[in-house]
Amino acid sequence: MSEEELRKILQDVKKGKITIAQAVEKFKDFSATDLGFAMIDHHRELRTGYPEIIFGSGKTPEQMCCIVELMMKKGNNILATRCSREQFAAVKQICKEACYHEVAGIISIKQKEVEQTKTYIAVITAGTSDIGVAEEAAVTAEFFGNKVKRIYDVGVAGIHRLFKRLPEIRGARVCVVIAGMEGALPSVVGGLVSKPVIAVPTSIGYGANFQGLSALLGMLTSCANGVAVVNINNGFGAGYMASMINKL
Amino acid sequence: MSEEELRKILQDVKKGKITIAQAVEKFKDFSATDLGFAMIDHHRELRTGYPEIIFGSGKTPEQMCCIVELMMKKGNNILATRCSREQFAAVKQICKEACYHEVAGIISIKQKEVEQTKTYIAVITAGTSDIGVAEEAAVTAEFFGNKVKRIYDVGVAGIHRLFKRLPEIRGARVCVVIAGMEGALPSVVGGLVSKPVIAVPTSIGYGANFQGLSALLGMLTSCANGVAVVNINNGFGAGYMASMINKL
Amino acid sequence: MSEEELRKILQDVKKGKITIAQAVEKFKDFSATDLGFAMIDHHRELRTGYPEIIFGSGKTPEQMCCIVELMMKKGNNILATRCSREQFAAVKQICKEACYHEVAGIISIKQKEVEQTKTYIAVITAGTSDIGVAEEAAVTAEFFGNKVKRIYDVGVAGIHRLFKRLPEIRGARVCVVIAGMEGALPSVVGGLVSKPVIAVPTSIGYGANFQGLSALLGMLTSCANGVAVVNINNGFGAGYMASMINKL
Amino acid sequence: MSEEELRKILQDVKKGKITIAQAVEKFKDFSATDLGFAMIDHHRELRTGYPEIIFGSGKTPEQMCCIVELMMKKGNNILATRCSREQFAAVKQICKEACYHEVAGIISIKQKEVEQTKTYIAVITAGTSDIGVAEEAAVTAEFFGNKVKRIYDVGVAGIHRLFKRLPEIRGARVCVVIAGMEGALPSVVGGLVSKPVIAVPTSIGYGANFQGLSALLGMLTSCANGVAVVNINNGFGAGYMASMINKL
Amino acid sequence: MSEEELRKILQDVKKGKITIAQAVEKFKDFSATDLGFAMIDHHRELRTGYPEIIFGSGKTPEQMCCIVELMMKKGNNILATRCSREQFAAVKQICKEACYHEVAGIISIKQKEVEQTKTYIAVITAGTSDIGVAEEAAVTAEFFGNKVKRIYDVGVAGIHRLFKRLPEIRGARVCVVIAGMEGALPSVVGGLVSKPVIAVPTSIGYGANFQGLSALLGMLTSCANGVAVVNINNGFGAGYMASMINKL
Amino acid sequence: MSEEELRKILQDVKKGKITIAQAVEKFKDFSATDLGFAMIDHHRELRTGYPEIIFGSGKTPEQMCCIVELMMKKGNNILATRCSREQFAAVKQICKEACYHEVAGIISIKQKEVEQTKTYIAVITAGTSDIGVAEEAAVTAEFFGNKVKRIYDVGVAGIHRLFKRLPEIRGARVCVVIAGMEGALPSVVGGLVSKPVIAVPTSIGYGANFQGLSALLGMLTSCANGVAVVNINNGFGAGYMASMINKL
Amino acid sequence: MSEEELRKILQDVKKGKITIAQAVEKFKDFSATDLGFAMIDHHRELRTGYPEIIFGSGKTPEQMCCIVELMMKKGNNILATRCSREQFAAVKQICKEACYHEVAGIISIKQKEVEQTKTYIAVITAGTSDIGVAEEAAVTAEFFGNKVKRIYDVGVAGIHRLFKRLPEIRGARVCVVIAGMEGALPSVVGGLVSKPVIAVPTSIGYGANFQGLSALLGMLTSCANGVAVVNINNGFGAGYMASMINKL
Amino acid sequence: MSEEELRKILQDVKKGKITIAQAVEKFKDFSATDLGFAMIDHHRELRTGYPEIIFGSGKTPEQMCCIVELMMKKGNNILATRCSREQFAAVKQICKEACYHEVAGIISIKQKEVEQTKTYIAVITAGTSDIGVAEEAAVTAEFFGNKVKRIYDVGVAGIHRLFKRLPEIRGARVCVVIAGMEGALPSVVGGLVSKPVIAVPTSIGYGANFQGLSALLGMLTSCANGVAVVNINNGFGAGYMASMINKL
Repeated sequence: MSEEELRKILQDVKKGKITIAQAVEKFKDFSATDLGFAMIDHHRELRTGYPEIIFGSGKTPEQMCCIVELMMKKGNNILATRCSREQFAAVKQICKEACYHEVAGIISIKQKEVEQTKTYIAVITAGTSDIGVAEEAAVTAEFFGNKVKRIYDVGVAGIHRLFKRLPEIRGARVCVVIAGMEGALPSVVGGLVSKPVIAVPTSIGYGANFQGLSALLGMLTSCANGVAVVNINNGFGAGYMASMINKL
Repeated sequence: MSEEELRKILQDVKKGKITIAQAVEKFKDFSATDLGFAMIDHHRELRTGYPEIIFGSGKTPEQMCCIVELMMKKGNNILATRCSREQFAAVKQICKEACYHEVAGIISIKQKEVEQTKTYIAVITAGTSDIGVAEEAAVTAEFFGNKVKRIYDVGVAGIHRLFKRLPEIRGARVCVVIAGMEGALPSVVGGLVSKPVIAVPTSIGYGANFQGLSALLGMLTSCANGVAVVNINNGFGAGYMASMINKL
Repeated sequence: MSEEELRKILQDVKKGKITIAQAVEKFKDFSATDLGFAMIDHHRELRTGYPEIIFGSGKTPEQMCCIVELMMKKGNNILATRCSREQFAAVKQICKEACYHEVAGIISIKQKEVEQTKTYIAVITAGTSDIGVAEEAAVTAEFFGNKVKRIYDVGVAGIHRLFKRLPEIRGARVCVVIAGMEGALPSVVGGLVSKPVIAVPTSIGYGANFQGLSALLGMLTSCANGVAVVNINNGFGAGYMASMINKL
Repeated sequence: MSEEELRKILQDVKKGKITIAQAVEKFKDFSATDLGFAMIDHHRELRTGYPEIIFGSGKTPEQMCCIVELMMKKGNNILATRCSREQFAAVKQICKEACYHEVAGIISIKQKEVEQTKTYIAVITAGTSDIGVAEEAAVTAEFFGNKVKRIYDVGVAGIHRLFKRLPEIRGARVCVVIAGMEGALPSVVGGLVSKPVIAVPTSIGYGANFQGLSALLGMLTSCANGVAVVNINNGFGAGYMASMINKL
Repeated sequence: MSEEELRKILQDVKKGKITIAQAVEKFKDFSATDLGFAMIDHHRELRTGYPEIIFGSGKTPEQMCCIVELMMKKGNNILATRCSREQFAAVKQICKEACYHEVAGIISIKQKEVEQTKTYIAVITAGTSDIGVAEEAAVTAEFFGNKVKRIYDVGVAGIHRLFKRLPEIRGARVCVVIAGMEGALPSVVGGLVSKPVIAVPTSIGYGANFQGLSALLGMLTSCANGVAVVNINNGFGAGYMASMINKL
Repeated sequence: MSEEELRKILQDVKKGKITIAQAVEKFKDFSATDLGFAMIDHHRELRTGYPEIIFGSGKTPEQMCCIVELMMKKGNNILATRCSREQFAAVKQICKEACYHEVAGIISIKQKEVEQTKTYIAVITAGTSDIGVAEEAAVTAEFFGNKVKRIYDVGVAGIHRLFKRLPEIRGARVCVVIAGMEGALPSVVGGLVSKPVIAVPTSIGYGANFQGLSALLGMLTSCANGVAVVNINNGFGAGYMASMINKL
Repeated sequence: MSEEELRKILQDVKKGKITIAQAVEKFKDFSATDLGFAMIDHHRELRTGYPEIIFGSGKTPEQMCCIVELMMKKGNNILATRCSREQFAAVKQICKEACYHEVAGIISIKQKEVEQTKTYIAVITAGTSDIGVAEEAAVTAEFFGNKVKRIYDVGVAGIHRLFKRLPEIRGARVCVVIAGMEGALPSVVGGLVSKPVIAVPTSIGYGANFQGLSALLGMLTSCANGVAVVNINNGFGAGYMASMINKL
Repeated sequence: MSEEELRKILQDVKKGKITIAQAVEKFKDFSATDLGFAMIDHHRELRTGYPEIIFGSGKTPEQMCCIVELMMKKGNNILATRCSREQFAAVKQICKEACYHEVAGIISIKQKEVEQTKTYIAVITAGTSDIGVAEEAAVTAEFFGNKVKRIYDVGVAGIHRLFKRLPEIRGARVCVVIAGMEGALPSVVGGLVSKPVIAVPTSIGYGANFQGLSALLGMLTSCANGVAVVNINNGFGAGYMASMINKL
């Protein structure tokens, strides 16, 4: 909005050519169509009422409680990832409603209802060691109101296990596929379904695994289409992304 | 399906207890609910009528023609990525309808109509050097019947350019964000929209860029939620994934 | 063999206690049982009559001819890998029997018959781009007298293709599995067969493939048992190893 | 198997043209020759009676016991790798027959006899620090019924040690060669024997060893033929692969 | 200074053409203009009165005290980075004036006044987890006499937070920008200000972050001009560099 | 600026409580103190009159001309880096004033005078092979109006060369130090001067140099204080940063 | 030695043409001039009387004692590197003469005198944190009978410290130069002396140091001639190599 | 040298206590014993008469000639590495005495005699492809006046070849060992000789060789003592270092 445009509006207001309400509208128009930056504010407001997210890793129980208390006042639901049992014990003291999802390492606090989706997200793992990351994805997605179907331990070294669960996998609106080691499962799933696949490499493995690098590179270079990748062990990010897609 | 079950059905057919049509149904039931593997066939059939994809890179013009001819007989639409002008010249000779999207390096052949989406995909680049990859994504998405809005050269070093285009970006159902160098744009876009972001690192840059590694790592470790990543320069993969999501 | 032992034998010879033939035997015994190093010689002799191998890459046509001529005099069969059409043209001039396996990039010269195996090696590729490496493996194995079954383009992104060929794969005594990109195929094959799998990563792919690194790491961290890996694009090495195993 | 073929068989059964037994055969034929997928089942059945493998690392003693109990019911032999003395103590409580191979870190439970091979596997190490990985390989191979000859501490820096053991090495049907640091031993052994060599890099070393990377790369780029590589420290994988080859 | 020149001066002294004081001056002149190496001494002297720096990491409390005592005798101010509470407790015992900046992990001892700058340094972080590194930078800069403005938790995933603080950022003479994960903040700040930006990657993050590598590469390949980078987590180095620039 | 504040201003204008000019001022106040985002515009305006930068690498001569023509209309000075002689020939045709700095690979076009600095920047190289990058830095800095002193080929392997030039180096307000191979020069210079050092790693070297990685890591881990690093071969970035600092 | 040659000698012995002593000589001649392998034995014998080396890292005190006892029986001197105080306490119990060099982490046992060199080795470090590695080198060299001059903390960031010690450095027959961080010191020393320089990178540093990688790469790409490098932190290796050279 | 000392000398000169010649001596003494820096000059002078080295790579024939002409005036011998036939042709025009060592890629010009060593350097390669690097080392060493024995193609995959040459290898005063691929040869040689070994990794190989990285890491982590490493393909550096040691 140039100074000329600003002066024009003000003069019109002064001369009574337009009402104040009309002027306000004009400002809104500008912000929405020309400037963009006002959108920032809109956006922030839209966010009010949204769940709050805490990354628990490395925070003391006291710090956790402090943050949770602050957030609870806004009346929103709260999700804290990478939390220990100790952190939960502290939070439970100040908030009776707090739940602990042990395998996922997640603390959740529900202060208001979330609308549930009709369609579901399939959360699939190659091995049993990947279940911690899978639960982080699954609990995150459920927290945002998604139905989730867990399909665990169906890795490619015994591929008949995967085929037995194919109908369930194909029924999903979006798949989260979690694997360590060579990270081959998302490629196989991506070739069997026609839905978006969010691939999560895990650091499960040793040696040439290099803390998840082998699975990460494998997923990024997948020969199947419709596969996109999040960070190593990032179950939360996959659950969040899948929720975004499932709610479209 | 065990041998017992198989014998039971055959005996029922023989004895007239069930009709042949009923028996066929039973086989289908098994395949769909217990075995999974029959789904493979179903899936393959579903694919009939789907577009065919060719990865042009490294193929001689003769090889290209040979593949295209084979595919044209099925009557499907054809998309060939990473194609040179020489490859196109050869294909054009055997197929008048072939189009060449030069910046994208794509040859497309339309043999039947594709239904168009109402919602659109935003394809966004940080710099002008990323446009080749962006066009690969955009043309791919359009080929699958998606509306696409191109928003180019809005990188973070001059962030007002991005804000000017924010309303268009926020209007999209899914965003493809393409950047080289430090690959920061998907993080910023991810923080400004509430739609899924498919991030594409490009190999634009030099030195510590290491052929796109810096952008790739940057996008994988993005501090924004709702961002998933495809391979370096993989415009096609991003366009395919975005199309899958947009059509849900 | 200590000096004492040596003197003892010599004295026995001198005194006629043992014949010269017996003395020679004693030397052989020593070398075979105590010292080991004599085995080196034995081994070298055993090698006489063995095929000769040339690594063609980087050699001029003249150098190739020079080496081939030298080797032909020994009367052995000759295999030259990574050879260009130019190198072959030169070799053909000095040796009528030379054959060129174009896709494999191999020149072979047969000067004597090789016994053929009854069992076969399955050479399997994920994509069509991997066929060059596969042919290097297959032609190498055939050159050593192995039967080979080629099973190409059965990658994990369309896994029904693999299943159609399963009986052939399971009939092999050893499998060579070749894949680029994420290199997932050896894991899947390893889970479906109970024979040794030699995995060959290829540099097919781009971006996060890093010239075959993604496939290499994927194969090394394979979740299937009975899989061992050779160097990127090393079709010759895989064919050689498979031949060794097949001939046991 | 198309629907047409299915209907044809059913009608023949109904009309009495073929017996039920003949129909069942026809189904088997299809599965074995055309479809492949039925092989999956066959395969699974074949596996019944096979040993069960547990990867102990990261499992609590309770989890170990739980899994072992489940597996024991099938009556199979059980092998658990990467196990601590604590895990063994717990397992011993529920299973008297459990043995602990301390250096290998393996728990084994024998519930039925395994046929022993006539030929043997040579398990060779460069240094004394590699013996842990070597024992994992040796105990695994023995568990599967292979004879094993241990040849330890014959690394290339004192190559006369290797030569003293050459006859034993050459007598093996397959060699497992284990080395850390520069990982040179498999190349030397590969040049001295004409049997397959399974190379195992270990993480023994420091600095530019990078947790086994130097040995891994060295083995992958070995100048000797007939060498294939498994993951860093993967003694189990090498033992399994060697057993597969030894039993051909 | 050549031997001729040396002889000339000595002869002039001998002959009384120049006084000894003049001769000494000549030596000084030479050292300053021709030789350079004398500058080393000058420089060292200039340093007298400068603060002393200790890198605390890995030193025992006793070693710390020993070094501090030695340094205190020179009468200079002392700054010790990467110090634990235990190290501070020990130092406090021998020096009452010692202060501990806990978040920064810095012990400072002031023995004489430092002149304060009029202009200020902005120390900016992307997240709250980066504050430890930021405080190391800020306390270092303050210790050298700079005014510092702390602007924390304004990362790119919620870019409105950054804009709210823009006037303060633009008021600075030099900016220190600290970020982990994808390290995008320096690029954005570099595009919004026209002052030098010192970028500090932190090891905050996990997985593909690779202990700060992703942020480091991102900052080195920044698309914004006027950005230079120090080592991962090197808050002290950034504070020192910023101080140097601010005091020009 | 909230809607309430907006309405208040408009009403005051309408009621004549404040003049339009006063209202305009109020808007400006808001933008400068509360909102930040308006600063974006201010900033953009400030930039008017600033030089324009083109990254020449990969652009055709036609594209270069097209961009240059557009930019010339604004009347600003133009700097194009990484330009070939061919690109210059094309640009020269449409712009007589264009100069080519061959060693730097820079085209510059001066359309108006730039104020010259009193203080100078020292541009220092380790070897003669680094001079291309050094000239990119030096010409860039000169283009922005800085005095530059070139001190080339004073690398650490013959350190007396460096000492001979020390007085010139110490006279600079900021140093740009350029080195390939082990990149040790910035550490040595950083230890000898008390001015900021901008270090530029170059890709000069081979083998373990890994295209400049060794120099890059060396500079980032420099034991000297007051050193910050830009991307490999990024002479332009160093010249820009040094100019920013020199003009403070 | 061919069988023919062997028979010839035996027949000559039998016929009395040569004495047994002459025959033995002939065998020796063969081994020394033609075969080489006999040299292995010679060499091994030469080694008798040589010091014994133990790599202490990862060995229990009991294992240490066990090895030391075995070695003591041969009457040689013993050097054990990477040893803890606990390991020493145990060894001391069984061997009064054992000495502990704490900073070096070395246990030495002297059972016979070693001849002392006239020339000395200079062991030089960049910082005080490198002294542990330096002492490992120095004590190793002294143990082998070399005179050693320690020149510590003369890193390039304060290069006047190095110059003060130059005469001592130049007096050495060979230099061991130890540095972490950017590893620049060997380049500078290599440029100032005309003696061989053994460079030892240390893992001192953090962040982009990557556990010594930066120093390692820096030293390998040194611009000075006459510099060769050993593994990260490998003080023993450097001391051993320097001793070999000093004793030539 | 403190100011006091300087004044003292000057006063002694003035008073006639010492002659000017004595004073000059005192200055020399100081420089040699106390100051060090004067050594720089001494050193430089010592270098007069030394050969001159040119790194030819990347220089135009004209640049080569220009440098050679300059150097020839000093009357020293000249060695230029990494030179093409074209560069030599140009140099030959201006200097009749120039020789070209084609395999080594070296141009040498002899202007005065060099004293020859009695002892020799063994230059050893694993394969024939390493000979280029080996010749660079050998010709360099010969240029400096060393006797050189070439022992090529004795790699570890056929270790009997090495043993045949052992006596020659053991006769050397220092060994240069050159290998690509897994780089195992220096470890084996290091275990067989008791002389210093300079290891040179080459970039011979492909795939997991990563341009010589596998050989480099292998040599750095060698299990043999008395091995130090130079940069990948750095034949010149190895020849230079070996010459330094051989001439001690």
